[in-house]
Amino acid sequence: MSTPSPNILSDDELVLLDRYWRASLYLCAGMLYLRENPLLHEPLRLEHIKHRLLGHWGSDPGQTLVWTHMNRLIRARDLDAIFVSGPGHGAPSVLAHAWLEGRYGELYADKGPGLDGLRRFFKEFSFPGGVGSHCTPETPGSLHEGGELGYSLSHAYGAAFDHPDLLVVCMVGDGEAETGPLATAWHSNKFLDPARDGAVLPVLHLNGYKIANPTVLARIPHDQLADLMRGYGYEPFFVEGDEPQRVHRLLATTLETALDRIADIQRRARTGSFEGLPTWPMIVLRTPKGWTGPKEVDGHRVEGTWRAHQIPLDPHKDTAHLRQLEQWLRSYRPETLFTADGQLVPELAALAPSGHRRMSANPVANGGLLRRALLRPDIREYAVAVTEPGTATEENTRPTGRLLRDVMRANPDRFRFFCPDETASNRLDDIYQASGKAWMAETLPEDADGTHLERGGRVMEILSEHTLEGWLEGYLLSGRHGLLASYEAFIHVIDSMFNQHAKWLEKALDVPWRASVSSLNILVTSTVWRQDHNGFSHQDPGFLDVVTNKSPRVTRIYLPPDANCLLSVVDHCLDSTDKINVIVADKQRHLQYLTIEEAADHCTKGIGIWDWASSDDGAEPDLVMACAGDVPTMEALAATALLREHFPALKVRFVNVVDLFRLQPESEHVHGLSDAEFDSLFTRDKPVIFNFHGYPWLIHKLLYRRHNSRNVHVRGYKEQGNINTPMDLAIRNQIDRFDLVIDAIDRVPGLLVAGAHVRDRMKDAILACQRFACSEGYDQPEYADWRWPGRTGAA
Amino acid sequence: MSTPSPNILSDDELVLLDRYWRASLYLCAGMLYLRENPLLHEPLRLEHIKHRLLGHWGSDPGQTLVWTHMNRLIRARDLDAIFVSGPGHGAPSVLAHAWLEGRYGELYADKGPGLDGLRRFFKEFSFPGGVGSHCTPETPGSLHEGGELGYSLSHAYGAAFDHPDLLVVCMVGDGEAETGPLATAWHSNKFLDPARDGAVLPVLHLNGYKIANPTVLARIPHDQLADLMRGYGYEPFFVEGDEPQRVHRLLATTLETALDRIADIQRRARTGSFEGLPTWPMIVLRTPKGWTGPKEVDGHRVEGTWRAHQIPLDPHKDTAHLRQLEQWLRSYRPETLFTADGQLVPELAALAPSGHRRMSANPVANGGLLRRALLRPDIREYAVAVTEPGTATEENTRPTGRLLRDVMRANPDRFRFFCPDETASNRLDDIYQASGKAWMAETLPEDADGTHLERGGRVMEILSEHTLEGWLEGYLLSGRHGLLASYEAFIHVIDSMFNQHAKWLEKALDVPWRASVSSLNILVTSTVWRQDHNGFSHQDPGFLDVVTNKSPRVTRIYLPPDANCLLSVVDHCLDSTDKINVIVADKQRHLQYLTIEEAADHCTKGIGIWDWASSDDGAEPDLVMACAGDVPTMEALAATALLREHFPALKVRFVNVVDLFRLQPESEHVHGLSDAEFDSLFTRDKPVIFNFHGYPWLIHKLLYRRHNSRNVHVRGYKEQGNINTPMDLAIRNQIDRFDLVIDAIDRVPGLLVAGAHVRDRMKDAILACQRFACSEGYDQPEYADWRWPGRTGAA
Repeated sequence: MSTPSPNILSDDELVLLDRYWRASLYLCAGMLYLRENPLLHEPLRLEHIKHRLLGHWGSDPGQTLVWTHMNRLIRARDLDAIFVSGPGHGAPSVLAHAWLEGRYGELYADKGPGLDGLRRFFKEFSFPGGVGSHCTPETPGSLHEGGELGYSLSHAYGAAFDHPDLLVVCMVGDGEAETGPLATAWHSNKFLDPARDGAVLPVLHLNGYKIANPTVLARIPHDQLADLMRGYGYEPFFVEGDEPQRVHRLLATTLETALDRIADIQRRARTGSFEGLPTWPMIVLRTPKGWTGPKEVDGHRVEGTWRAHQIPLDPHKDTAHLRQLEQWLRSYRPETLFTADGQLVPELAALAPSGHRRMSANPVANGGLLRRALLRPDIREYAVAVTEPGTATEENTRPTGRLLRDVMRANPDRFRFFCPDETASNRLDDIYQASGKAWMAETLPEDADGTHLERGGRVMEILSEHTLEGWLEGYLLSGRHGLLASYEAFIHVIDSMFNQHAKWLEKALDVPWRASVSSLNILVTSTVWRQDHNGFSHQDPGFLDVVTNKSPRVTRIYLPPDANCLLSVVDHCLDSTDKINVIVADKQRHLQYLTIEEAADHCTKGIGIWDWASSDDGAEPDLVMACAGDVPTMEALAATALLREHFPALKVRFVNVVDLFRLQPESEHVHGLSDAEFDSLFTRDKPVIFNFHGYPWLIHKLLYRRHNSRNVHVRGYKEQGNINTPMDLAIRNQIDRFDLVIDAIDRVPGLLVAGAHVRDRMKDAILACQRFACSEGYDQPEYADWRWPGRTGAA
Repeated sequence: MSTPSPNILSDDELVLLDRYWRASLYLCAGMLYLRENPLLHEPLRLEHIKHRLLGHWGSDPGQTLVWTHMNRLIRARDLDAIFVSGPGHGAPSVLAHAWLEGRYGELYADKGPGLDGLRRFFKEFSFPGGVGSHCTPETPGSLHEGGELGYSLSHAYGAAFDHPDLLVVCMVGDGEAETGPLATAWHSNKFLDPARDGAVLPVLHLNGYKIANPTVLARIPHDQLADLMRGYGYEPFFVEGDEPQRVHRLLATTLETALDRIADIQRRARTGSFEGLPTWPMIVLRTPKGWTGPKEVDGHRVEGTWRAHQIPLDPHKDTAHLRQLEQWLRSYRPETLFTADGQLVPELAALAPSGHRRMSANPVANGGLLRRALLRPDIREYAVAVTEPGTATEENTRPTGRLLRDVMRANPDRFRFFCPDETASNRLDDIYQASGKAWMAETLPEDADGTHLERGGRVMEILSEHTLEGWLEGYLLSGRHGLLASYEAFIHVIDSMFNQHAKWLEKALDVPWRASVSSLNILVTSTVWRQDHNGFSHQDPGFLDVVTNKSPRVTRIYLPPDANCLLSVVDHCLDSTDKINVIVADKQRHLQYLTIEEAADHCTKGIGIWDWASSDDGAEPDLVMACAGDVPTMEALAATALLREHFPALKVRFVNVVDLFRLQPESEHVHGLSDAEFDSLFTRDKPVIFNFHGYPWLIHKLLYRRHNSRNVHVRGYKEQGNINTPMDLAIRNQIDRFDLVIDAIDRVPGLLVAGAHVRDRMKDAILACQRFACSEGYDQPEYADWRWPGRTGAA
């Protein structure tokens, strides 16, 4: 630990800085406790205290210290900076500074400067109808949802990408540092280009304790922690202490050094004199948990221990606590910090940056303000030629890869693509023509042959769905655009991140000052029906079930049946805002059905009858064959062809669903069909067979309120798989053509007897398929290469 | 990098070792390609090659090298060792060794030694009806599902806990090392007690590439990687090279050193001369990807690059590849490794350990063989006294904490409890009376005041749900017992781990030689309805939706309504095998309803009518009031009381559901009620109001096939929350008593007109509740402290 340089801060500056910090600490403590008497103009009485004490004191002093010091540097260096608050329930520190900087009052007029404003500001904290104890969309200056721990650092890096002048100060809690997502997010520095991206300054806050335990990183030897940070590729600077004056000086010196280091790395990278992997600075800030709070309560040490985590004193339980609370609050000498009418004293107010330089008001943290729409090429240029439906094949994702390539080209400053090492595997590798993969670490000569590594690359690949999702969220929330592609089974890795982002978007819609951000687009590919060969562990279409639990205001699910429909859906999603668009489309070769014009029309409607595959001629059908998803659509079509062959008089209506929420009533989802529309497609009483991509009960969950729901028979993945062929896997889950024909025979009145021999033939076909697969290792060509025979053809 | 000592391996030993390795490599390559001609007794022809080439070559050489060397050490030191294969799709190496050690033939008689057995062994690999390309339950010697990456190291540590003589060799892929769960699992060494636990030897395999990218850890400077491993608390040993003889010698020397280090740490810890945090050894093995495979194919470098990841040659596309494949296979000189009739030559067979010392046959990796049932105390000793239902309160989890304390005491060698820093917060802290929290890192004097840290502790707390879940899975699969408690919202963090473990259990049921293991028990607490104060981000009961997608053979969901029911459910779950039991129970004070005898009876049935709360007197009711979960049960009861007050003639049947799968038809879930049983509870045509803990549509998903499903009106969490009080949160989601009364009025024929004024009063009550909460910060006492008035009382 170096000795602090005495020259960075004058004694006068230090005194002011310390007073500003104490003002913020007073506000933090006030938020936890006070509903009246905000500046202690009267002696503190029990009726001034909130009845239910909620909130967290522990991490506030360290966080607010860093913010206070950053203000000085922002002014001194005219920095464009934002603050990401990682420690759990750390909102008081951010809220306090937003209030001190005047931002809070600008956004929430009744809670700004003044005694009444301050009283309301205190009271609404962690109070019914008020704001949360961790950073939420309501928190000025924050783009980070602080509820679930582990994502601060990936969010910080996401915000820094393509923002060359931005500095993201990221407070990492030593509790959250134990989470997996945080532990790997340190490696983000291998993907940040000092020439074209901004900088992240991580501050690992060794607060020492979680709720009831010491933290791992606070209790490993000092040298081990330094090794760990060096091992992650950072130059660690330690700021440790419990004596404010000393820590102020040390932190000021250290921040200056760290910012010098950053400036030097950026200058060298931007003048072409730096080509290696930069060693960015980071700070380890070790200060006592609950610093400056009560040192001891009821004989237990509090400051510097886990007991300082939440509410250190409870005046409702013990009147001695009331006195101790008053002493604590008065220890900050609020009368020297605030005017009698509840304003920050002018000499302190002058310490904050102004306008957009305030971290509480930086538009980057309200990224919709900065968002510029994507330039989107005409999707017709990428269309697959379709002359007859169901006769040609294409890899469904490949044309979209070309579209994304040109989106990338047209928007070099505001679009990135994210994928865990699977871009080529997912047949999206045309995108590399527009940009390589970000990679700042070592390269070898042999990399030139096919790895597409590039220092300034905007294709982001790391084998961590958490990091990718965190980067993308940070990138979107700071005003840009992107798309994440993932293997379907492993998108569950980020279920909880999806949940938290959906909750952020939902709440942000109700925060008037939050500008709209680009939607989070997730392309779910390498899907269950072609994970036959990878086996059971790779077969899981259940992400959709997670998605359908979140607010209909923000969730969308699309299952485009072919390449042109995927183009149309992706184009729509790239243009949308404030949603999470989940697109399910497999990467393998599949039958193509619709021209690009038909696809655009079909996807806009989101659901529709395919006349060319139907035999009801617009009249009431005997059977509705419905489907959603590429493979289920093909099998449903093949079943329809078989039905026509065996039962020429049967009137089958063929319905394809792209926009899954069309199935829900309009009262439940904004995309829902009215009952009349639904009935016009699915009838009120005819048998419906629904061949679905995912778990079958999801469909029942969506349409249980529909008139005809009792007649809907759903097929889908029901956890039957191992090492299979595609056809074998379909058969095991009964989404195959033969089982669908059997389902029809079982359900259409009159077919049961007449169809008995057809039933037997279907069963024979199933057995033959499975026998062939198990002896040869692949599907019989007549089924694997099946084509739609046309309206009049035979199967 | 040190110079290998020449003394560890004699030249003869080295030759034999290398031959054994080459035998394993031959088998790996054979698995990828051959369906006939397994030992190349004939020139290789296209018809000997599988039609569809699937599998992964890249990581096999490094993994099989380590296994080969471990065999030598197991024999030399009589080690009890297992092997965890972390790299993706690394099954060939494990399968190869299982075959060489004779274990494969013992378990799969038709695929053992002999030409036919070898042919079938080759063919079934990654073949329909065969075995997977990553480790699965069918893989001998493996307790690690290798499909989703990131969990090898936490599984390894879980297996090592309480197995003092065990060595777990854990191959960590440099791809999976990028995942969050793996990145934090290195810290498991702070929780492993060298005195009472076994050892883990991580071998980080710097294979260099993932599917199409270099790996991060392979491309950071050597010193950085060494720092990183030192920072994680390990002593790294580097074994690097591409020349087999040299690598053999270096690896042999290094393994000896590493095992000496481990033995020394354990000896000192077990003789009381070691108290600090041990620095365990780990090995960095840097060898070329696809080592010994084709060096170049079609002008592209393959060995040592990403092109070696899967199938390096495709004879079906290019006949030159057929020749190259034959050269490659023959380069191992199979005729010198195997006898003409397909046996490993005796001098090589003699190199493997025998019996249970074989890593492919170690019972730890088939842990059910070692499992001894838990000693379970009589739950009546922990019962809450209940004289009148719904009148007294208790923290629902606290008695279970006492039960777990005594389970821990009675089973000191085979039960652990896992929780992310929330044991006390979840009111389970009585368990600390039986055991503290495992903690090998530094302690401070102030820790003595309440942190319960203990070197040999068996309460496992780290702020990583991933690590906890991984530890627990490893602990269970190696034959022990445990329970994980988590905040409800954040259990989604391990959705994907749940999925993979459920898939493991489901498949293991069909593997005859796998013995039953203890169930994975997850206590979901700090539930949505009492996360009112923590706000929207902490409100998510959707884990149940994920659970219901997995096989009914392994999934169970319980929602005990009170403390005694929770005791009964936990007791049952601790005794069960091969399941995942998800138990939802909040930690706060709640009303108590059933005596322990009534609770045991109710939970055994899983669903039942509460006569004391019903007014139908066994006759057909006008309304069924159903509920599942603690808070919804209380609100449903309160609504029932209100209905009785306002509509004394109304016949209400009160049904409580504990075992959620009772709702499904028996055809769908083994716990499902028959239709007759269901109808006898829910009627065939009467209105049913179902007040549910989770998202309401989950109930529709479970019972859409029931006769009366159209009349079931479900209330549950519908993503309406912010900072609330409990009552306010209930009201926003309409699970509150007043909304339930309104629901009844809207649904029971005849009540609509008669009940108009009641409806208005309910709406007034709702508004009054919300106004009170927003002005006072807590719920009105008359509702917060509501008690069941008894059968005849007024609400």
